[in-house]
Amino acid sequence: MNFDSDNQSGVSPRILESLVSACSGSASSYGTDDWTRRAESALGQVFGRDVRAFFVATGTAANCLALSAVANPWDAILCHRQAHIAIDELSAPEFFTGGARLLPLETDSGKITAKDLHASLDTMPAQRPHNVRVSALSVSQATENGLVYSQAELAQLADAAHQRGIHVHMDGARFANAVATLACEPADITWKAGIDVLSLGASKNGALAAEAVIVFNDALARDFELRRKRAGQLVSKGRLFGAQFVSWLQDDHWIEMARNANQTAQYLWATLKTHNEIKPTWPVEANEVFVVMKRDLLAGLKAGGVGCSGWYRRSVPQSINMSDDELPVRFVTSWSTTHSEVDVLAELLHQLA
Amino acid sequence: MNFDSDNQSGVSPRILESLVSACSGSASSYGTDDWTRRAESALGQVFGRDVRAFFVATGTAANCLALSAVANPWDAILCHRQAHIAIDELSAPEFFTGGARLLPLETDSGKITAKDLHASLDTMPAQRPHNVRVSALSVSQATENGLVYSQAELAQLADAAHQRGIHVHMDGARFANAVATLACEPADITWKAGIDVLSLGASKNGALAAEAVIVFNDALARDFELRRKRAGQLVSKGRLFGAQFVSWLQDDHWIEMARNANQTAQYLWATLKTHNEIKPTWPVEANEVFVVMKRDLLAGLKAGGVGCSGWYRRSVPQSINMSDDELPVRFVTSWSTTHSEVDVLAELLHQLA
Amino acid sequence: MNFDSDNQSGVSPRILESLVSACSGSASSYGTDDWTRRAESALGQVFGRDVRAFFVATGTAANCLALSAVANPWDAILCHRQAHIAIDELSAPEFFTGGARLLPLETDSGKITAKDLHASLDTMPAQRPHNVRVSALSVSQATENGLVYSQAELAQLADAAHQRGIHVHMDGARFANAVATLACEPADITWKAGIDVLSLGASKNGALAAEAVIVFNDALARDFELRRKRAGQLVSKGRLFGAQFVSWLQDDHWIEMARNANQTAQYLWATLKTHNEIKPTWPVEANEVFVVMKRDLLAGLKAGGVGCSGWYRRSVPQSINMSDDELPVRFVTSWSTTHSEVDVLAELLHQLA
Amino acid sequence: MNFDSDNQSGVSPRILESLVSACSGSASSYGTDDWTRRAESALGQVFGRDVRAFFVATGTAANCLALSAVANPWDAILCHRQAHIAIDELSAPEFFTGGARLLPLETDSGKITAKDLHASLDTMPAQRPHNVRVSALSVSQATENGLVYSQAELAQLADAAHQRGIHVHMDGARFANAVATLACEPADITWKAGIDVLSLGASKNGALAAEAVIVFNDALARDFELRRKRAGQLVSKGRLFGAQFVSWLQDDHWIEMARNANQTAQYLWATLKTHNEIKPTWPVEANEVFVVMKRDLLAGLKAGGVGCSGWYRRSVPQSINMSDDELPVRFVTSWSTTHSEVDVLAELLHQLA
Repeated sequence: MNFDSDNQSGVSPRILESLVSACSGSASSYGTDDWTRRAESALGQVFGRDVRAFFVATGTAANCLALSAVANPWDAILCHRQAHIAIDELSAPEFFTGGARLLPLETDSGKITAKDLHASLDTMPAQRPHNVRVSALSVSQATENGLVYSQAELAQLADAAHQRGIHVHMDGARFANAVATLACEPADITWKAGIDVLSLGASKNGALAAEAVIVFNDALARDFELRRKRAGQLVSKGRLFGAQFVSWLQDDHWIEMARNANQTAQYLWATLKTHNEIKPTWPVEANEVFVVMKRDLLAGLKAGGVGCSGWYRRSVPQSINMSDDELPVRFVTSWSTTHSEVDVLAELLHQLA
Repeated sequence: MNFDSDNQSGVSPRILESLVSACSGSASSYGTDDWTRRAESALGQVFGRDVRAFFVATGTAANCLALSAVANPWDAILCHRQAHIAIDELSAPEFFTGGARLLPLETDSGKITAKDLHASLDTMPAQRPHNVRVSALSVSQATENGLVYSQAELAQLADAAHQRGIHVHMDGARFANAVATLACEPADITWKAGIDVLSLGASKNGALAAEAVIVFNDALARDFELRRKRAGQLVSKGRLFGAQFVSWLQDDHWIEMARNANQTAQYLWATLKTHNEIKPTWPVEANEVFVVMKRDLLAGLKAGGVGCSGWYRRSVPQSINMSDDELPVRFVTSWSTTHSEVDVLAELLHQLA
Repeated sequence: MNFDSDNQSGVSPRILESLVSACSGSASSYGTDDWTRRAESALGQVFGRDVRAFFVATGTAANCLALSAVANPWDAILCHRQAHIAIDELSAPEFFTGGARLLPLETDSGKITAKDLHASLDTMPAQRPHNVRVSALSVSQATENGLVYSQAELAQLADAAHQRGIHVHMDGARFANAVATLACEPADITWKAGIDVLSLGASKNGALAAEAVIVFNDALARDFELRRKRAGQLVSKGRLFGAQFVSWLQDDHWIEMARNANQTAQYLWATLKTHNEIKPTWPVEANEVFVVMKRDLLAGLKAGGVGCSGWYRRSVPQSINMSDDELPVRFVTSWSTTHSEVDVLAELLHQLA
Repeated sequence: MNFDSDNQSGVSPRILESLVSACSGSASSYGTDDWTRRAESALGQVFGRDVRAFFVATGTAANCLALSAVANPWDAILCHRQAHIAIDELSAPEFFTGGARLLPLETDSGKITAKDLHASLDTMPAQRPHNVRVSALSVSQATENGLVYSQAELAQLADAAHQRGIHVHMDGARFANAVATLACEPADITWKAGIDVLSLGASKNGALAAEAVIVFNDALARDFELRRKRAGQLVSKGRLFGAQFVSWLQDDHWIEMARNANQTAQYLWATLKTHNEIKPTWPVEANEVFVVMKRDLLAGLKAGGVGCSGWYRRSVPQSINMSDDELPVRFVTSWSTTHSEVDVLAELLHQLA
């Protein structure tokens, strides 16, 4: 019953098989091998156009290298106040960008809207050279609250950003979950919606360690290979990432895994909401379930062997009343989470009720 | 009638005389000259103890070099949401610190309290190594709202910070104005109150270009001269700064100039408040007057030759009702502002009423 | 017949087996898993003392993170003029250290001696705060020329460095090859010889992607986990590195693989030197063979399917006469290189003679 | 008898007068004042075309900001091995450029030739993304050895650089001395010769603290004002620099002062060379005299009150035999050095002979 994080799940057998196959024999180094080329080609097919893909080892590296391509050291990057880049990646964004500033948008809504963007820019001091200028917007898809932007929402947001001379980055650590939810083409919610650069994460969805920066705007890809090398992210045996991405993408394996995670999240939520002391924080749209519960109940669950995480108090919208003996809790499902794990949790909840 | 900014005022004759005197003849370079030594010694007397002083050309350099001594690149710096370092110094704080993060404290109060500090830290995620850790607090004295921290407020705040392992930096661009208001010793509101490092500004108060970082905590002074050199802030003719500081400090000249600015601000506020459409934003405690007025009235003042600045809408506390045709306005007085300038403004206001 | 680089070789079956085993099931993330703990423990046993180990994805990251712990942004790092960090890692050293300077020591000798170190420091301008101060020495073991420092050479060098207040970093991308050559304990040529921090590479010697920074000096380990996180080098599934290192170290597997590479290099050199137009550049002490040969001969070898690399002209000592139609060439062997590959090369050489 | 450095000389009365005049009354801040505009305009006239000028407080800031405009953090900057930026500015070049690498060209010649440039680039590893790429060449005019590049030398060098895709920066800390020597137009040895960006120093030649970055290539000026602000180099009272530059440039004052310094250097050299134990190191072409002398003789001069500097042993070309009891010595003259100071030195030398 591990609902702690999807990054704790194991590796899909198909990906592992591919990795094993790639490990034998000599291969050209530093990303000039066949596996890397096949992965790049597969990404081109999945996104319905040529793309520039840069593989790296971590989501933090993917996000922050991507940000470095859209923000000069004297620029600012707008993001949601709960964005992973703003909270959970230490000061890596500043490190990779050479000192650009994150401006977390204070909103109680779980997503950023085009209106939010305009309002934020309109009330921000903008006197050159004293005030930082926003050069980039970063959105997460799915969001850190488990929500999913629709294609229309993204298109409006990216359009607003471009009108203001702002590039758009998407943190796609859970991009597959969003695609599975929307049942759309990957292109629909990326370059066709105006996304300039995407961090595409596989590590939370069946891979071992495989992240990619997908650049849709050619100008932004210039010197990107130098950024990656300089950051110590160019592995010598590129097949490590190539082999994972090839199998991850093949035959919609990535979407199937994400779909399982999403469906299990729904099943989990259906279970949780039967308990009358558990209140939802956000709608369940991907593979995360956010609720508010009594501290005692959480303690009981943990004592019963349920892995889940007490969450930041500030993550709860002000519209939700939360007493002092309550706290926010996050449950995450993954490609490998089973319904029977949820059933055991249900039984435990029943006992604790 | 220039109430735009105290950094637009001229240079005090006494400071100019000292500067002229220092310009003749040879002198040892890079801060090893007699004027620099005299200035360091004068600072020691003014602060009632040995201090380490590092002279630089701008307030931004003073603030950001000071911050670099109290924050590693992976640390965070708490400050008021209206702090100069957070708004008006581009991304210089990130540049000088190598990528530390500013965390502006969202408060409607014009000052940060010890309680604010604890509340902020208590609700902040603090999981190592994912979340940034606050290593420094930066307070402005006088504040960017024209308020002045009392000695007790500072002592409580610094004490709270130290309890949490946090160093305290003071942005003293208008430090002299605060000393004049409180009629205290400089030591009372700096090292005796727990301040670790002070940016002491003379440029807004009679000097031409003279700022100093005063380090009260010896450990923080280690390698500071290397930080300054690396930042291109070690001028070859150190007497530039030495001569200004010597005369600025001599015979309380700096305090007298600040006192004049403060008193003129009171006189100005007494004038402004006679106009029934002008509302105060903050109490007038130093040399700045913040009000809310009709756009038409501001236009009339400007047309009449009054220099003052429309201010950030977000700078106004939510408790103040401000209609769409109103806006915040800032008036600043300096050592050289005269009562007759205010009188002309009064006459103009009378006409516009 | 791939003698291009040891980073092109495949993955050892034993390491792969361990990796596969680690991939199933849930595990705690961000390096808090059992595989990581086992790897740390194994490293402690191999080095004969407690060590702090930080796993990362690339040699560049290992080297440059290590350097960041021994050099402030205003310091300098001495290294051999052929050091990998000085040539082949772009400007990653500057990036990770926040701008420290590499000072390549110009020597025709393949290794740095204590005398070289003293001479270099003694002729270097050292006026504070104008000139950079050397805070670190970086040595490679085995070197980029395929040489191996003896324990005594390292101890003298590190001792000289420490006398001058300088920390010592070892780039151990081919550390296993050095240990195999010297038939010593790993401790003998690291902490017992005065090495403060080691980059230990497994990727060139049977692993897929596994590098570690081993910190022997506790003070240098402080905040190292923050450096790694900030650099986007903390992978979520730590078992990736843990599983590789556990099997790499088990039952001296790493030393056996390195020994095979070294012996094959000797066999290769014995073959090459039979050709009267091939001249040695450096003694063969690890798994690399450096020679000078005619351009035509190299072209013939390449046409015959031999993978090897034309090398930097400046890498050849001035004592070796090299005509315009000659050039330096590098051959590298790995754990998986076979004698029969060398035999085919021998046959080809015979034909080309 | 201060021949230590031209940065120890006093301020020219004409410049001081201008400065005093600028200090009275209010003026617009942050470089939007009339003095700044007049200085910019004067620079346009002096250089015979529109230029973008950015005033800063130190030569280090001017050089390093300029370098940041011509080198990405992953690029390299070629310079002479004795360049000020490579030796005397700590690691400021790395700081301002975000980690670009200086590659000091090892030459015994006092100047860099087009041939040196090509040879250096041709023997440098250049495999993307592993090796740094040279994006900028920095030349000093006059050089750190007191030599002066002719217009033809500069044009050939800049042409060679541009052919290789390399921008050219000129460190003009002693630019006025070079113009005086060549009796040319400033344009002849800058933009007409292919210089892209110039650091123009006045502080060593009669000013108090006044340096400018002159950008001849418009594309490089983009965002330069943000670079300057971010570096804490935008002073609030811009008239500080404006007033100095206006008077420095007016009526060829700067050239006259430089001419005096140069002529006095010739007079000094004529004196020194009469002593049969003093050997010249470099021809005297600007305001610096480099010689080799016995340690005893230097001690005698210092005891007699002569200010001059023992210089780096490595600065002496290998062609000059220097015994262990000899050492290199530097004498510098300035706008204010008098012939009578030299005469006293001559008398002392005579006594010591």
